[in-house]
Amino acid sequence: MSNLAEKTLKSEPIFSGRVISLQVDEVELPNGKTSTREIVKHPGAVAILPITDDNKIVMVEQYRKPMDRVLIEIPAGKLEKGEEPAHTAVRELEEETGYECESLEWLISFYTSPGFADEIVHVYIAKGLSKKKDAASLDEDEFVNVIEVTLEEALELVKEQKVYDAKTAYAIQYLQLQEALKK
Amino acid sequence: MSNLAEKTLKSEPIFSGRVISLQVDEVELPNGKTSTREIVKHPGAVAILPITDDNKIVMVEQYRKPMDRVLIEIPAGKLEKGEEPAHTAVRELEEETGYECESLEWLISFYTSPGFADEIVHVYIAKGLSKKKDAASLDEDEFVNVIEVTLEEALELVKEQKVYDAKTAYAIQYLQLQEALKK
Repeated sequence: MSNLAEKTLKSEPIFSGRVISLQVDEVELPNGKTSTREIVKHPGAVAILPITDDNKIVMVEQYRKPMDRVLIEIPAGKLEKGEEPAHTAVRELEEETGYECESLEWLISFYTSPGFADEIVHVYIAKGLSKKKDAASLDEDEFVNVIEVTLEEALELVKEQKVYDAKTAYAIQYLQLQEALKK
Repeated sequence: MSNLAEKTLKSEPIFSGRVISLQVDEVELPNGKTSTREIVKHPGAVAILPITDDNKIVMVEQYRKPMDRVLIEIPAGKLEKGEEPAHTAVRELEEETGYECESLEWLISFYTSPGFADEIVHVYIAKGLSKKKDAASLDEDEFVNVIEVTLEEALELVKEQKVYDAKTAYAIQYLQLQEALKK
């Protein structure tokens, strides 16, 4: 990567919040010139694609302040400090949907916005679901509606742009691929 | 969405940069309590999945400062103010890879990090590619290596975590799905 890397000349902390922090780095470019990079630091997150025994996808309707709209997403949550992603996944699934899972399989990890943020999302598939409790026990500033849909219904939600985020679009396309490979 | 929406009580601008800006909003939650939301504003972006006549995927190797590593991604770029996403797509494809395209088809749009950012990425497929020039004409702080790979090679890059971002993982899985549907 020698011909592409950028050397940090200076790093200025701008903001440190509850979820993210922001810094502006001055960098030396491969051609020797300098530029600045605006960088959001994020603790990382997990997302869970929960499949019920009757082959439905468990999703959550959630208001997202940055877009001022409700999105339908697969359950997800931030990593706590020092927490194993698989552990976060089990915890978030239960908190957001009330479901416990018998099996949890890692599917993929990806950076969501590599141009300006270091957020990584680890995506898991959860199966063998059983309701542990009726109501989800959310963080005190978190409110969701839980829905269960078939793959066909999920694809319809993508078309209608009610599902409108990268991790959920990826997860639904993954199920579509598995279906196609079965045939 | 009435039972989920949050009302903005106050919005504090923290930072306004070249690419992103940051604000902290105080909100009223559905239960009447208050909380804060850290929100990154981004102009939005396009990504292009370019397929050559001999069925190769054109990708770019690019250093990403937030992770301090080189990633292999499909070509992408920020929307300029007032620019149509399809126009940005044609422009970025040419700037980053030197390719012109005969056809450009919208594939999907998604938010990348709905929890803390409003960034949206519009993904297109470009076909009928012809080299307009040998060298890409990049922004002055942008350096990339262009590579062309088969779908099998791309899937290998995902496995090796050299492809490691959501839009590129989605695009490659999309091609995998099209292949599976053909059979």
